Amino acid sequence: MDRTALDPMTARARDLDARAELRATRARFRLPAGVIYLDGNSLGALPDSVPAAIAEVTTQEWGERLIRSWNEAGWWEAPLRVGDQVGRLVGAAPGQVVVTDSTSVNLFKLMVGAARLRPGRTLVLTDPDSFPTDLYLAHSVARLLDLELRRVSPTDAVAAIAEAADSLALAAFSHVDYRTGERWDLAGITAAAHRVGALVCWDLCHSAGAMEVGLDEAEVDLAVGCGYKYLNGGPGAPAFAYVAERHQAVFDQPLPGWTGHARPFAMTAGYVPAPGIARLRSGTPPLLSLLALEAALGAFDGVSPAGLRRQSLSLTTLFIEAVDALEQSLEVVTPREPDRRGSQVSLRHPDAFAIVQALIARGVIGDFREPDLIRLGFAPLYVTHADAVQAARQLGEVLDSGEFRRPEFSHRGAVT
Amino acid sequence: MDRTALDPMTARARDLDARAELRATRARFRLPAGVIYLDGNSLGALPDSVPAAIAEVTTQEWGERLIRSWNEAGWWEAPLRVGDQVGRLVGAAPGQVVVTDSTSVNLFKLMVGAARLRPGRTLVLTDPDSFPTDLYLAHSVARLLDLELRRVSPTDAVAAIAEAADSLALAAFSHVDYRTGERWDLAGITAAAHRVGALVCWDLCHSAGAMEVGLDEAEVDLAVGCGYKYLNGGPGAPAFAYVAERHQAVFDQPLPGWTGHARPFAMTAGYVPAPGIARLRSGTPPLLSLLALEAALGAFDGVSPAGLRRQSLSLTTLFIEAVDALEQSLEVVTPREPDRRGSQVSLRHPDAFAIVQALIARGVIGDFREPDLIRLGFAPLYVTHADAVQAARQLGEVLDSGEFRRPEFSHRGAVT
Repeated sequence: MDRTALDPMTARARDLDARAELRATRARFRLPAGVIYLDGNSLGALPDSVPAAIAEVTTQEWGERLIRSWNEAGWWEAPLRVGDQVGRLVGAAPGQVVVTDSTSVNLFKLMVGAARLRPGRTLVLTDPDSFPTDLYLAHSVARLLDLELRRVSPTDAVAAIAEAADSLALAAFSHVDYRTGERWDLAGITAAAHRVGALVCWDLCHSAGAMEVGLDEAEVDLAVGCGYKYLNGGPGAPAFAYVAERHQAVFDQPLPGWTGHARPFAMTAGYVPAPGIARLRSGTPPLLSLLALEAALGAFDGVSPAGLRRQSLSLTTLFIEAVDALEQSLEVVTPREPDRRGSQVSLRHPDAFAIVQALIARGVIGDFREPDLIRLGFAPLYVTHADAVQAARQLGEVLDSGEFRRPEFSHRGAVT
Repeated sequence: MDRTALDPMTARARDLDARAELRATRARFRLPAGVIYLDGNSLGALPDSVPAAIAEVTTQEWGERLIRSWNEAGWWEAPLRVGDQVGRLVGAAPGQVVVTDSTSVNLFKLMVGAARLRPGRTLVLTDPDSFPTDLYLAHSVARLLDLELRRVSPTDAVAAIAEAADSLALAAFSHVDYRTGERWDLAGITAAAHRVGALVCWDLCHSAGAMEVGLDEAEVDLAVGCGYKYLNGGPGAPAFAYVAERHQAVFDQPLPGWTGHARPFAMTAGYVPAPGIARLRSGTPPLLSLLALEAALGAFDGVSPAGLRRQSLSLTTLFIEAVDALEQSLEVVTPREPDRRGSQVSLRHPDAFAIVQALIARGVIGDFREPDLIRLGFAPLYVTHADAVQAARQLGEVLDSGEFRRPEFSHRGAVT
C-alpha cells in the first residue's frame, strides 16, 4: 500500500475522538498498554470499577458477613436489580429482564416457554447461520416438544413467516450475525411474526451494550443476551433473559428452581412460580460473576443506547474507509449500509487465520472465525477512532510485508 | 440449665481440638472475629487463598491478557480441571465430573439424560422431602418426557425400587436430607436400583466436602452437588455434575451448547457431543465464580474424605452430647447413629425461628428451616470442638433467659 494513504485519516481520527460524545468513557476501563483491543465482541475489557467491587464482595460481604449478605448486601435481589440495568440498555422497562444462567440455558427456557404459549402450533423458524448454541438448543427443544425446526435466513424471514402462517409458534433469530456483523430487521421480523400470531425470541449477544435494541418499542416477546461481550461483565458473566410483561403471568418455563418460586423460603414441594420475571430464575446465581457484571454496568452511566450506536457507527464507518484505502484484496463482509451493520467489521481473506495471529503479535487483538473471516469488534465505550485507523494501518503492514506467512502464525491451537 | 454442666466438655473440646487430625485447616479460612459459624452447609466460609486468586484473575487474566486467557490461563479447561478436584472429594476418578451451571440446571440435564438411557421405562422415584428444586425439576422432566413421578421416602426406597421393577428408569435422591441432616444409604439404594436395571442420580449438596461419598465404589450412575456449601466456593459458586464413565459415550443431555461440542470452534450447525464428561457443558461458564471455587478447593489439600468424615462426626457427636446436657425441651431431629448422620445437627423447637435469631445476635450463626427446625452445620475444615460446646452453651443461655421472646427476634424478613 501507499504508506501515506492513511495519514490524513489519522488526523481526522484524532479530531473525531476529541469531539466524540463518548470521549470520557474510555477512562472507565483498564486497557493494557500497547494493545488495540478489537475483541470486545467476544470478551469486553475490564471496567476500572470491577476489581475493588469484587474485592469488597469477596472479603467483606462473603468473608465477614457470610450468609447474612443474602439480605444485607442485596444478593437475593441481584438478578432482578442487574436485570433492570441491562433492561435500560436494550429498551426494556423495569421488571422484564433477569440476569441468570448462561445464554444457552436462558434460550432453552424461553423457547420451551414460547412453544407452551402457542399450543397447537408446531413450527419454529430460525437462522441456519445462528450461533451454534442457538441451533443446538432449538433442535433440542423441537425434539422434546415434537416441533418442526425450519431454517431460513433472516433475509427471507418475513416471507417465510407469512407462509408458515398459523402453524408458526416461534421465530428465533439473532439481532446481529456473529460472523458477518450483519444486523437484521428486529422490528420488521417481529411485526411479521405478530401478524400470524406467533412469538419472537431475539438473541442480543452482539447488540446489547453497543446499540439501540428497543425491545419494548418493537413489542418483542422474548430475548436473551450475554453479559461478557459489550456489557463487559467479565469472562462467562451471567446472561440475561427478557420476557415482555404481557407474557409473564402465564409464562411456563422448564427449569423451575427454588429461587423462582413465589415463596422460596417456604420450601414447599409444589412449584408456584413467582409473579413477574422472577419466575425465570432457577438455581442460585453465581454471585461473584453477577456482581462483577453489576459493577461493570456502571461504565454505561450517563450513556444512552443511541449514543452508543452513534459512536459505534462512526468507528466502523471510519475503519471500513481505512480498509478501502489499503487497496488490499480484503472483502468487507459486513454491510456498508449503516442500518444493516452491527458493531463489528468482518473481513474475508483466504489467510484470515494467520493474519489475525500476525495482528495479535503486533498488539491488535481481533479474532478469527471459520473458514476465512477476520472479525474486529468496535466496543463504543472504549475503542477510539485512532484505534480504528491504527488497526487498519497495522493490517496493511501485515499484508504488505507478508509476515502473516511466517510459520508461527499458521499454527492452530485448540482454542482460537 | 445448670450453668456448670458444660464446663467439663469445654476442657474436653480443647483437648480434642489440640489432637484433631484437621487442626491445621481452620487457619486456611478467614473467619470473622466473635462469630461461631455453623452455616457452612448453606454458604461455606471464605478460604484465605480466594481474594488474591480472584484479584489475579480479574486484573491480570481478564484485564491484561483479555481474550488470550482462554488459552493462556487455562480458562477453557477449567470446568473439567476443577471437576477433577471435586471428583477426588466425592470418590470419582478423573474425567467424570464437570463444574458448570447450577445444581438445578445440572439435575435437569442428568434426569433427562437418564430417562433417555432407559427408553421404555416410565417411572422416576424421588423423595417427597427432597430439596424443593429437585422436586420441581423432577416434575418438569416427567412432564416433558411423559414419565410418572412417584414420591417415596428413602427409608422405603429399596422396597419401592424392587416393586417398581423394570418400569423404573431412575431413582433420584439426596445423600443427606437438607432439613433433618439424615444421611441415606447411597450404596444400598444404588445397588437396589441396579438390580432392576434402573439408574440412580444422587444430590450431594449436603455431603460433598464433608464426608466420603464413594461414587465410583458404589457404582453410582449420576450425581450433582453444589459448590458453595462444604466446598466453600463462594456465593452461588457453580455446581458439579458426575456421569460415570460407562455412561458417557451415549449420554444425551437436553442442553447442548457450543462448549460441549466435539469441535467447539468449528462452529458447525450440527451438534456432535464432545467425548467424555465435556458433553455436559452448555454455555460459557461464569469464570470469576468458577475460579474462586478452584482456589477454595486448595483448602482441602492433604485432606482425605475419610478425615473429613472423622472430624465431622466428632464435632456433631460432641454437640449432641452438649445439647443433651442442657436438659432443655429440644428434640434432636438428626439421627444419633453416626452412620445415619450427615454433617449438621437439626433441633426441633416451636420457637425455632426466634431462637436462631437470638443465637445470631450472640454471634452463633446457624439457620432456620420451616416449620420448626434450628439447623446447625459443622463444616469439618474450620469448625472446632470448642465452637460446638460454646454454641451449645449459647443455645442454653438463649433458652434459659427467654431472650428469644424479644420482639426483634420474631420478625421474619423475605429471606431467613
